[in-house]
Amino acid sequence: MQCHPRRGQGRLWIVSLGPGAADYLTPRAAEALRQAQVVVGYKTYLDLIEPLLHGKTVLASGMRKEIERCRKAVERALKGDGVALVSGGDAGIYGMAGLVFDVCQSLGVAVCDGLAQGDDAGEALPIEVIPGVAAFNAAASLLGAPLMHDFASISLSDHLTPWTVIEKRLMAAAEADFVIALYNPRSASRPDVLDRARSVLLRYRSGETPVGVVHRAMRAGQRHWVTTLKDLVGSNVDMQTVILVGNSQTYLWSGWMITPRGYLQKYTL
Amino acid sequence: MQCHPRRGQGRLWIVSLGPGAADYLTPRAAEALRQAQVVVGYKTYLDLIEPLLHGKTVLASGMRKEIERCRKAVERALKGDGVALVSGGDAGIYGMAGLVFDVCQSLGVAVCDGLAQGDDAGEALPIEVIPGVAAFNAAASLLGAPLMHDFASISLSDHLTPWTVIEKRLMAAAEADFVIALYNPRSASRPDVLDRARSVLLRYRSGETPVGVVHRAMRAGQRHWVTTLKDLVGSNVDMQTVILVGNSQTYLWSGWMITPRGYLQKYTL
Repeated sequence: MQCHPRRGQGRLWIVSLGPGAADYLTPRAAEALRQAQVVVGYKTYLDLIEPLLHGKTVLASGMRKEIERCRKAVERALKGDGVALVSGGDAGIYGMAGLVFDVCQSLGVAVCDGLAQGDDAGEALPIEVIPGVAAFNAAASLLGAPLMHDFASISLSDHLTPWTVIEKRLMAAAEADFVIALYNPRSASRPDVLDRARSVLLRYRSGETPVGVVHRAMRAGQRHWVTTLKDLVGSNVDMQTVILVGNSQTYLWSGWMITPRGYLQKYTL
Repeated sequence: MQCHPRRGQGRLWIVSLGPGAADYLTPRAAEALRQAQVVVGYKTYLDLIEPLLHGKTVLASGMRKEIERCRKAVERALKGDGVALVSGGDAGIYGMAGLVFDVCQSLGVAVCDGLAQGDDAGEALPIEVIPGVAAFNAAASLLGAPLMHDFASISLSDHLTPWTVIEKRLMAAAEADFVIALYNPRSASRPDVLDRARSVLLRYRSGETPVGVVHRAMRAGQRHWVTTLKDLVGSNVDMQTVILVGNSQTYLWSGWMITPRGYLQKYTL
């Protein structure tokens, strides 16, 4: 829907913070944070952008309060505020973007495209989703070039998805030789989730398959290392870890993890 | 490998430009472009960052010259220059990062981590991969929130990958209900590639599955629209188009394409 915001009407930016460091925050995201009167987010992420929050109304909340944050953000925007709802990584990938639209639909709030606005008055709430550097983009860059060919991203959290669906996806991705990005490799309700995933993958893939593990990419406490599928263990990981499993062509070289861009050795170097 | 660059030693940044507009170029990428004496890239991408190239040695080349660009970038860095090799979107996703490591390995060039450098002298070439906003991140943000759940990214180009591999991945991703991002939906050698992909997907997925088509996200000439799998046609797409196919839960609402974050309706709004 075309946007025609009224003067003084609120608006909502869904802001991707990227991996966390200011070096990877896009100018568009920084501008939205500058313009916003109200910033809403998970406390851990707000701490990462503390210098940008001076003088703003900050509404922080804890984990698993996503719906509450979305409702608050939409309510404040409807009252006339410029609201930035922040999300780590890319807001469109396991982030806050989808929930905002779900909430607006359920509340009967008409929404229009905040990027495509005209000058006339209107009633719809302008929303802009600002894309960012996702966690797997950041993780891959630290490891070298593991995502260079087709890949699948799978969250191992069974909080809102049945394990049978997750398992089916692991099997499909392994059998079709995708590079695989695993999110949420430790679940509160299922601490052995990575070991279970590894067992599924090993039905289809060699134990020598290179694996990269990245913890807190581009943040304080960053650690990353490479291993193989047979040696991958769940003891060192948590919800801030992303794991990248190579395809059949992926190789390790001097500590780097590299996936060639194709299967046909058409090029000579 | 830990980096210990010598004074006056060259270095190589693999720079992700994001979708193209300066609004989505990370500060880290901008800083690398500022420091570089030499910038190497595909002409179309260099045109997007023309204001940042003033006073630099610019080595531009055309499509399918990727290996030549990589070799040139590595050679100049070994001679002592600070070299930025640019890539559209995220350099680690169907970009230039993998080829650089391939080239260095084949030339016997020792490479170290440009982000983790110390003070001592050393012989290895410092390389830093700077992640960015990938094409599907940008495309998803314009459509709403289509990538909110597990997804697979598949290139339909059969230039370096046999069609049998591509077809197998399409089947696996469709059957396991991944959201699917399709890159390179038109191939010079196979102009009907999107129609073929659609036929494969329709074996497993409803014709009513929502599909988003995004052409030149965040660039001049940007266009995007939503349709369904049965109505998806290959006539409007080219190599600068990304197509996002929803999963079984994805819905269209007011022109937006939205994938819920889970399968269990645990939350009430």
